[in-house]
Formats: sequence, structure tokens, C-alpha cells
Amino acid sequence: MNKIVLKGDIVFTPDKDNFKTYKNSYLVAEEGKVIGIYRKLKEEFKSYPIKDFTEKLIIPGFVDIHLHAPQYPNRGLGYDEELIPWLDTYTFPEEAKYDDLDYAKKVYKRVVKDLWRHGTTSAIVYSSIYKESTKLLMELFIEANLRAYIGKVNMDRNTSDKLKEDTEKSLLDTEEIILEYKDRSTLVKPIITPRFVPTCTSDLMEGLGNLAMKYGIPVQSHLSENRQEVEWVNRLHPDLKDYASVYNEYNLFGQTKTIMAHCIYNTQEEMDLMAKNQVFAAHCPYSNYNLSSGIMPVRKFLDRGIPVGLGSDISGGHSLSIPNIMVGAIQASKMKWLHTNKGLKPLTSSEAFFLGTKGGGSFFGKVGSFEEGYALDALIIDDSTLGDTEGLSLEERVQRFIYIGDDRNIVEIYVEGKKVDEPM
Amino acid sequence: MNKIVLKGDIVFTPDKDNFKTYKNSYLVAEEGKVIGIYRKLKEEFKSYPIKDFTEKLIIPGFVDIHLHAPQYPNRGLGYDEELIPWLDTYTFPEEAKYDDLDYAKKVYKRVVKDLWRHGTTSAIVYSSIYKESTKLLMELFIEANLRAYIGKVNMDRNTSDKLKEDTEKSLLDTEEIILEYKDRSTLVKPIITPRFVPTCTSDLMEGLGNLAMKYGIPVQSHLSENRQEVEWVNRLHPDLKDYASVYNEYNLFGQTKTIMAHCIYNTQEEMDLMAKNQVFAAHCPYSNYNLSSGIMPVRKFLDRGIPVGLGSDISGGHSLSIPNIMVGAIQASKMKWLHTNKGLKPLTSSEAFFLGTKGGGSFFGKVGSFEEGYALDALIIDDSTLGDTEGLSLEERVQRFIYIGDDRNIVEIYVEGKKVDEPM
Repeated sequence: MNKIVLKGDIVFTPDKDNFKTYKNSYLVAEEGKVIGIYRKLKEEFKSYPIKDFTEKLIIPGFVDIHLHAPQYPNRGLGYDEELIPWLDTYTFPEEAKYDDLDYAKKVYKRVVKDLWRHGTTSAIVYSSIYKESTKLLMELFIEANLRAYIGKVNMDRNTSDKLKEDTEKSLLDTEEIILEYKDRSTLVKPIITPRFVPTCTSDLMEGLGNLAMKYGIPVQSHLSENRQEVEWVNRLHPDLKDYASVYNEYNLFGQTKTIMAHCIYNTQEEMDLMAKNQVFAAHCPYSNYNLSSGIMPVRKFLDRGIPVGLGSDISGGHSLSIPNIMVGAIQASKMKWLHTNKGLKPLTSSEAFFLGTKGGGSFFGKVGSFEEGYALDALIIDDSTLGDTEGLSLEERVQRFIYIGDDRNIVEIYVEGKKVDEPM
Repeated sequence: MNKIVLKGDIVFTPDKDNFKTYKNSYLVAEEGKVIGIYRKLKEEFKSYPIKDFTEKLIIPGFVDIHLHAPQYPNRGLGYDEELIPWLDTYTFPEEAKYDDLDYAKKVYKRVVKDLWRHGTTSAIVYSSIYKESTKLLMELFIEANLRAYIGKVNMDRNTSDKLKEDTEKSLLDTEEIILEYKDRSTLVKPIITPRFVPTCTSDLMEGLGNLAMKYGIPVQSHLSENRQEVEWVNRLHPDLKDYASVYNEYNLFGQTKTIMAHCIYNTQEEMDLMAKNQVFAAHCPYSNYNLSSGIMPVRKFLDRGIPVGLGSDISGGHSLSIPNIMVGAIQASKMKWLHTNKGLKPLTSSEAFFLGTKGGGSFFGKVGSFEEGYALDALIIDDSTLGDTEGLSLEERVQRFIYIGDDRNIVEIYVEGKKVDEPM
């Protein structure tokens, strides 16, 4: 049996309102799942292999629930544009390159390595429309021993000629990937990925909804990122009440587990439907800044009980670092607070930490926390370079790491109780 | 004569609207000042020592015009508070430690090293109220060969007992530093530093204004960071029209070169006075986010011809990195654009770059650009780890470095034409 004990300063957020901290304690796991945390190691665990990280922080691995792997080379470029011209000028031309497997391999290896380096142990990823490079990306995550949902993008309208798929082929390619990968790995799974309503015909969405239901496969897409986009969807589907209803019409809105990215301009009714169907919202503050999209009212989602996680949204967002994005989410919520006359309370540090760990992790099941039964996905943080630790609580040390630490402070990474080495 | 030629891909912003780029060119300096940039090296310069940075970017050193050195240990802590409680709970207790020279030395060495590491070649810095540790900080900057204005903080009301100075002693200590340091170094100079109106009596401000005028010493303080602060100033000085007028009344508002940090809630009249007196505004977007202060309408300042630079505002801000703060400034301006119904245009990349180099650098004179006669303060950037450079313009490479690079990409640093090594 695979057993492990990690010893150190343990911090996690079982709920959003509190950090739970254990100074100099033992985190015990069997078969990759947490058994418990002990201030003194119980007799029965003394024979387990102990990794001693005394003085170091042990926190859950980070969870990124929205990013586009093929946009990775575009990070830091093109942010003088808004969503639609940015897609046309920067994004679609880059994504069109991924029928070249050599190119895809070069970029995707960097993506996987960089996620690892930043302590992102679970990711929910868009690839491109191309089937073969999507499979390649899945293989790279499997090799790396990182947790992921990977989706081949579907688009059959309103995109460049090269990226516009034949509807039937788009569905066949998607089904092929589902059949090949649904049971291939415990860590890496397929996810159905209509890019967003404007690029998917009703036929395509209907077909994808059917595949989701037939195989019980989750779904990801984009929702209400930009005002022009929302108006465009309303013009494309005047028969349906709102943007969310289009997805819902085609069984792509919580009929199986679903994530919607951005959710800046949702109506009350759309939020009600998300709450009812337990659709996840992927909050991507840096992307929303960079593309001048706006600030998601994240407090409204939390208050309604809608599940929320954080997304880097590479390359609308420039940073892969979930701690950076936690800071971005807190800062965005503070501006929202001011702009709502102090109506919507800002995120606290524990809330932001929760969103970037257990909040997004819940999409995978018991991931993102150290409660009993949770996957032991953990990061070992050496924060000794960030200043004195004397007089600081564990909570303050984690806060400081989030704000001023970086990948250099992450010294070891575990997924399902096993150490994950740097991907090749 | 001190001569040098730097060869590489040269980028700078002589004005805010444009990057000026020279692929594979020669930047020539004599006695620390730029002579010119040449695509082919002129015969007369061929005997000069050439540093070959082919394929690397050569950009001006960064300029940080607002930070508090003694708050350095507090980076990343306490951001659930707004300005006034944050000062009382986190800042004043930390600043009270700097009568201990050993403690000051430990922290200040880290500050100087960290500024160097992030490519900040010019900084405008608050120390604490303590004279001796202020001198120590000045000596550390002199030793490091970095450019700085350093100010002993003055406070004689509304602060903790330990930090409340006797008015007369505050003025005497300030004058002592001025006399000792005004001609001590060409790179490091004193600056008069009333903390802000709420902590300075009229007598103190009058005395400081007199010192500024008597010795021709510049001034720095804070202005209109937070609504409660502005109301407090109005209550303290009901006789004067507004916050800016209090400083102006005491010759602390452009009578000598002046910087005011934050400037979020300025009235039109205050901005007019800043324009008239050419008072610099230090824009500190991360601090303004972290302390829920608000977003400075930077476009209004630029449109009025008020000089603007960027500030990290350690530790209201958490990051010392001026590229990070450029990103923060662009993002903040995009939210301001949305919240003014697209009234105030967002900052472009070249504008943000200008603010973090020549914009703030102008406070020092000819600093922050590579035009003829400017100080050769330069950073050598190796951006090869950030992705392919093929097909990217020099401007795009600089943009990408700003968004996704970090201190690891800064491989050499020059000030006044001389290489600056890591401070001890």
C-alpha cells in the first residue's frame, strides 16, 4: 500500500472563511488520500515513510480551472485590444498552428512544465480544434502525473476559415477522444468544450450536449465576458431568454458537471440557474483586466452558493501563477466594493486561497483540501527567503507567500501522495 | 575619460506615445551620459570598450518614485485593512523599530539588494523618523551605486507616542541630514518628507517649507489617497480650501521640486495647481488596490501635463517590481475606462513604460531615457526564457517581458555608465 507522512507547517481552507493551521504536524495519507493530520504522530503511522519539511509550509496544490494551452506563446501580447478583435488578431492565428504536431509538442511541453513549476497540480484546459494535438496534450499531462481535464475545442461558425470545423467531423472527433480517454487515466480526463455560443451552431451544441449526456462527460465554455459578446449572443439566439439559456437549451449547463468562464455580466436569472444547476464559475481576474472586460461580482456568486474557482485564462491572462491570481481576485473585489458603494464585500485572503484550491478543486471531486478522504495534492513552500517568520502566524506566512512569493519558493510537489518531478 | 558602448536591441520611450527601438545597435556613453545610438558604430567610438549584448534587450533602468524602506518587512501583510487602521496596526509599530540601528541595517540592506535585483536604478524613498538609520540608508544607497532621494519622515501629531516627534527636534534633525548629505554624493540626495498633513502640525510644515526653500531641497508627501483621509484633512484645516492648499500654504507644493503620492481623490482645482507648480504625482496602483483606496484617474493627470511616475509604495504595495506595477497601472486604467463609460482612455504599454522610466526619472533630471545627454542607467534583459523571439518586434518583446518576465531576466545593470554589482 502506498503510504506517506508529510511533516511541517500545514495550512488549508476547508471552508472559505477560515484558514486551518497545524504548526509542526504530520499529514498522513494512504493510497494517495488523506487519513488525517496529527500534532503527534500516532503509533500506527510510525512505520510510514516520513518526509520531514519542518519549518516549511505544506499547502494544497493549486487548481486552475480555466486556461487555453495553445495560447501560451501569446502571453503578454495584444492587451491593447478587447475580446473580439483580440480573438481575431492574436488568438485564432496562433490556435491555427496546432495541426502541426511538432509545434504543438514544443509549446505543450512548456505549458505542462510551467504549470508544474507554479504548483498547479490540477488544471482544466482548452486545447485547439485539432484532435491529434489534443491527444498529445492529454498524454503529456498523463506523463507528468498532473491532474487535468482537457477539452478539444469545437467551433463551426464565426471563426477563421482554417479553424471552422465541419459540424459532423467536430462531433466525431470529440467522440473519438472521449472513447479513447475516458478511462485511460485516473488523473487526466476529457471535457466537452464548445468554445462559446458565437462560434457554435445549434446543431453542434445539440450534438455536444448529447455526447455529454451519453458518456457522462463534463462541459466547459465561456459566459458573459464582454458586453459586445453578450449582445452578439442575443442577436444570434433571439428566441432564447439569455446567454445561459442557450447552453441550457442544449444540455450544456449543469446537466453534467459544467464550468463557465468569466461570468461578468450575468443577469440575476442566469445566476439563479447556475446555482440551481451547480454550474461552476471560473473567475479570471487578470484576463478580465487585460482585455478590459470588467470585474466579476464574485461576492454575488459566493452568496448564492454557486461554486467558484480561479482561472489563469492564459493568454487573456498573462500569469500562470494561481497565487498571483488570488491577489488579482482580492484586488478586483476591492475595486468592486468601492464601485458598489461598499455593497459587495471584498474577498478575504482565506476566501481567495479557498477559490484557488478547494473551490476549483471540487470540480475534480475531493481535491484542494487536506480533510480526510481528500487527494493528497500538496506543495512544500520554503518561505525563508521572504523575510523573518518569527512572530508571524502560519496564516500570515501563507498570505505573505501569496503576495510576494513565486515559483522559487515551491520546493516539492505531490499529487495523489506521490512526489511529482519536473516534467521532461 | 569613462567611456562605454552597449551593443544589443535598444528600446526606450522618449515620449509616452511611442517606443523607440533600435535592433542590434550601439549605445555610446561618455562620463556616464548618452552620446548617441548608432546602427553602425562610428569610427571615433571604435576604441571604446564594447559590451556585446547581441540578441538581448537594453532598456532604461526602472524608476520607483514612492516607497517606504522601513515597511519592507510588512510586504504581503495586513491588506484586509484600509489606510488609517493599516497605519495604526501594521505600519507605525514596524517603523518604531528603526531607532535600532542593527535592525535597520538588516532590513535596509535587503531593501537595497532587492531594488537592485528588480532593476530599479533610481528610487525615491521614505525612511522612518529616525535620523541615524536614515543616514545609514543613505550610505547603503551610496555604497550600492544606485540613484536615490531619501527622506527622513517628519511627524509631530496623530501617530503613536513613540513616533511623535518634538517639532523643533524634527526640524533640527532634518537640517542636520540636509547639511551632511546635500553634497555628499552625486547619486544620493536628501528629500524633505512630511509624512502627510494629518501627522504634521502647521509649525512643522512651516519649518519644513522654510528648509526646502533655504537649501533648495525637494519635497515628498502623500495626497488624497483615501476618502476618510481627505475628510480628516478638511477637518484639521477648515481654513484652507483643500488638501493640496495645505501643502501649498507652507511652500511644500512645487516651490521646490515636489512629489505627491496617490492623488486618487484630487479636485479639479488641486490638479490645476499641480499642473501650474509642476508637482509630480506618484501613481501606486497596487497599493491603491491592496488598501482599497481606489483608482487614480491617471489619464486626467497626463492630459493636464502633470508629471507622473510610478511607485511601488512598499508596503501598501506588495511588489517592488516596476514592470509588475506597469501592468497594474495599465489594468487599473482599463477598469477606470469602463467605470467612466469609456471616458478616460486606458494606458497603452508605451505609456506605462514611460511612467516607470522617463516619467518618474525626470524628477532626477535627465534620467530614464537614452536620448543624448541622459544618464546611462540601463538594464540588460535576456528574454530568451520567455518564449520565441522570432517574428516579434522589439516593442512586443519588451511588452512580453513586462507582463511575464521577472528579476531573473535582468542580467546586468548599469548606472551612470558603470556596471552595478549586487550590493553586499
